[in-house]
Amino acid sequence: MIKTDILIIGAGPTGLFAVFEAGLLQLKCHLIDALPQPGGQCAEIYPKKPIYDIPGFPEILAGDLVTNLMEQIKPFQPGFTLGERAETIEKLEDGQFVVTTNRGTRHQAPVIAIAGGLGSFEPRKPLLKNLPQYEDQGVAYMIKDPEVYRDKKVVIAGGGDSALDWTIYLADMAAELTLVHRRNEFRGALDSVEKVQQLKDQGKIRLITPAEVTDLKGKDKLESVVVTKTSEDGKEIELHTDYFIPLFGLSPKLGPIADWGLEIEKNAIKVDNTLDYQTNIPGIYAIGDVNTYPGKLKLILCGFHEATLMCQSAYRRIHPDKRYVMKYTTVGGIHGFDGSKKEAPKAVVKAIE
Amino acid sequence: MIKTDILIIGAGPTGLFAVFEAGLLQLKCHLIDALPQPGGQCAEIYPKKPIYDIPGFPEILAGDLVTNLMEQIKPFQPGFTLGERAETIEKLEDGQFVVTTNRGTRHQAPVIAIAGGLGSFEPRKPLLKNLPQYEDQGVAYMIKDPEVYRDKKVVIAGGGDSALDWTIYLADMAAELTLVHRRNEFRGALDSVEKVQQLKDQGKIRLITPAEVTDLKGKDKLESVVVTKTSEDGKEIELHTDYFIPLFGLSPKLGPIADWGLEIEKNAIKVDNTLDYQTNIPGIYAIGDVNTYPGKLKLILCGFHEATLMCQSAYRRIHPDKRYVMKYTTVGGIHGFDGSKKEAPKAVVKAIE
Ligand SMILES: Cc1cc2nc3c(=O)[nH]c(=O)nc-3n(C[C@H](O)[C@H](O)[C@H](O)COP(=O)(O)OP(=O)(O)OC[C@H]3O[C@@H](n4cnc5c(N)ncnc54)[C@H](O)[C@@H]3O)c2cc1C
Ligand SMILES: Cc1cc2nc3c(=O)[nH]c(=O)nc-3n(C[C@H](O)[C@H](O)[C@H](O)COP(=O)(O)OP(=O)(O)OC[C@H]3O[C@@H](n4cnc5c(N)ncnc54)[C@H](O)[C@@H]3O)c2cc1C
Repeated sequence: MIKTDILIIGAGPTGLFAVFEAGLLQLKCHLIDALPQPGGQCAEIYPKKPIYDIPGFPEILAGDLVTNLMEQIKPFQPGFTLGERAETIEKLEDGQFVVTTNRGTRHQAPVIAIAGGLGSFEPRKPLLKNLPQYEDQGVAYMIKDPEVYRDKKVVIAGGGDSALDWTIYLADMAAELTLVHRRNEFRGALDSVEKVQQLKDQGKIRLITPAEVTDLKGKDKLESVVVTKTSEDGKEIELHTDYFIPLFGLSPKLGPIADWGLEIEKNAIKVDNTLDYQTNIPGIYAIGDVNTYPGKLKLILCGFHEATLMCQSAYRRIHPDKRYVMKYTTVGGIHGFDGSKKEAPKAVVKAIE
Repeated sequence: MIKTDILIIGAGPTGLFAVFEAGLLQLKCHLIDALPQPGGQCAEIYPKKPIYDIPGFPEILAGDLVTNLMEQIKPFQPGFTLGERAETIEKLEDGQFVVTTNRGTRHQAPVIAIAGGLGSFEPRKPLLKNLPQYEDQGVAYMIKDPEVYRDKKVVIAGGGDSALDWTIYLADMAAELTLVHRRNEFRGALDSVEKVQQLKDQGKIRLITPAEVTDLKGKDKLESVVVTKTSEDGKEIELHTDYFIPLFGLSPKLGPIADWGLEIEKNAIKVDNTLDYQTNIPGIYAIGDVNTYPGKLKLILCGFHEATLMCQSAYRRIHPDKRYVMKYTTVGGIHGFDGSKKEAPKAVVKAIE
């Protein structure tokens, strides 16, 4: 059982910044995210695109914002349960909550902050009848640890940024890499498309287009895929492979959280925006894109503010008998749980003679 | 008469960022600030100190945050009335407001956003009976345009960062520069104190401590100051000078805004935080440190959020018949009033052969 002060569901920009604000209050956080990496939409959907409305950044790539946030929260040593979806919640007799993921990992905390954005990112899957039997047995929808594919035969399917980027990344590592796409045209950053063209020209990858993977074969685990070329009258090629990775995009689904007894409106969780972004269940907060209230804007900067006010309320809930006096970071500095310290240089008092 | 869409009182971080959010909605802004430079507390009180809780910046100097915000709002060409205090407000028959400063500059707008922080920064003045008669006639409490002092005789009084920094800045420019302080010890950044020591050693400035300016002389304008050395039995020195600049710090005062008929609580303006940070007077909003509501935190990041929601409401007020559909900056880009354009690089759709 993982225990923490604030259990944050969703490691997007809102959840990440909540770790920082909690840390200033000396509260520890643990984050759960269905994605293999932190950053939410910024990391999954548009890491290489510029955002223009983060205050203080005339322009910042979404991926760099996530990197900066990770750096900013480092002193507060958050825990992470990545690649797992928060599935169920129960309330213990002492008022604490226990959240269990789809893989059975259990987390306990007195305060839950749902920062689930548009929902848990779930892969779009190809329509192959025997797909479920090979899941985790050769079929993967996200790449959690690329090292798994070193010296293995890999077939990637897809025509967008993810398919292009992972093809580039794995081209040198995998024993054999095949990219299958149902069109000849790929859609992505120009330099990614060009790089894949190069890899193909150099014979480092095999490209099969326009084509689709139409069957999976193997006894206990995946052993080969059948690729059907749509341009050549449905000609079929059987490829021996260790892994098949369809990268057809991930789409967010509010999913199991919708059944936690929270008030839902417009596919989002209703919160009390007049005070602390708490839901109808005391001790459960909802911050960032996942919540709704009159005038709500689904913007990153709003999530930051909501996370900040939420942490103050969580502190009062966890320490009902302590009085907290806010100190500016410039004045009080940052005291990391790892013993690190950041402080503004002090003014000197010195005679001039 | 200066006319604009949103008249912002206070050019601190909150007011500055409001210009950006308004710009996204194609609304023009004009800012009034009592200080000669934008940036509010960040620029006036701690420009060289690091802030640690601006989301996405593990550390940023307050002065750099202001510089970044100025860069971010540049495409939206805000107007500035600096060094003047917003004094009175009146409502015209057509619902527009007119705000007049202590210098008589008039501004008209359908929406007022008060981003006045802890109040208008007012100088602490030395207790000299004939001081008022020399204000603007040789006596200045802030330096608006340093060029004014080129080749002039200047006496600065004070022992903090402002006195040190301006002494350093003006040492080479002024014909003669004297620094007077009532103690031998100065309080400021170590390198500033050391630099002033150097300037003194090099004979580039005259330092008189411990001492106070005790009298001002001159017919129509200031001609000399009397400096009394407190250590030498009150020995008096008369210094001929063109300017006397006492830099004893600025302290914020809510001031005239307190009489505008707004609901005041805890020296701040009460707003409706359930929706749009509007005050009890429709069309007048209060954002940032200057407002109060249940759970209010006087933090920069909260001001950013409040400015953003306020602008949406201002838009509906100014364009009651238009429906605005929010577009992410990443998707819609930035279209400056100066014709400038920022846009994310588009994905290409390209065949790989
Ligand atoms: C193309 C695009 C451009 C954008 N441009 C801008 C812009 O310019 N400016 C701006 O401010 N915003 C922009 N946005 C919106 C911005 O990305 C979101 O507002 C922001 O990501 C919300 O952050 P969040 O942390 O609340 O949620 P998210 O980033 O959505 O993160 C939520 C995380 O929670 C996880 N999660 C949800 N439920 C569960 C569960 N049950 N178990 C485990 N994990 C779960 C999800 O997997 C996800 O990783 C843009 C969005 C897109 C798609
Ligand atoms: C030493 C110190 C350290 C701090 N550290 C942090 C930190 O680490 N993190 C953090 O988030 N915050 C910190 N703060 C607080 C932060 O600076 C404020 O929250 C922020 O400046 C508020 O911004 P604002 O734009 O609302 O108001 P301000 O910055 O106060 O700006 C208001 C402006 O309005 C002007 N004004 C007011 N009334 C009038 C009028 N009638 N006419 C003309 N002009 C007027 C004032 O002159 C002023 O320039 C710190 C503050 C101090 C003093």
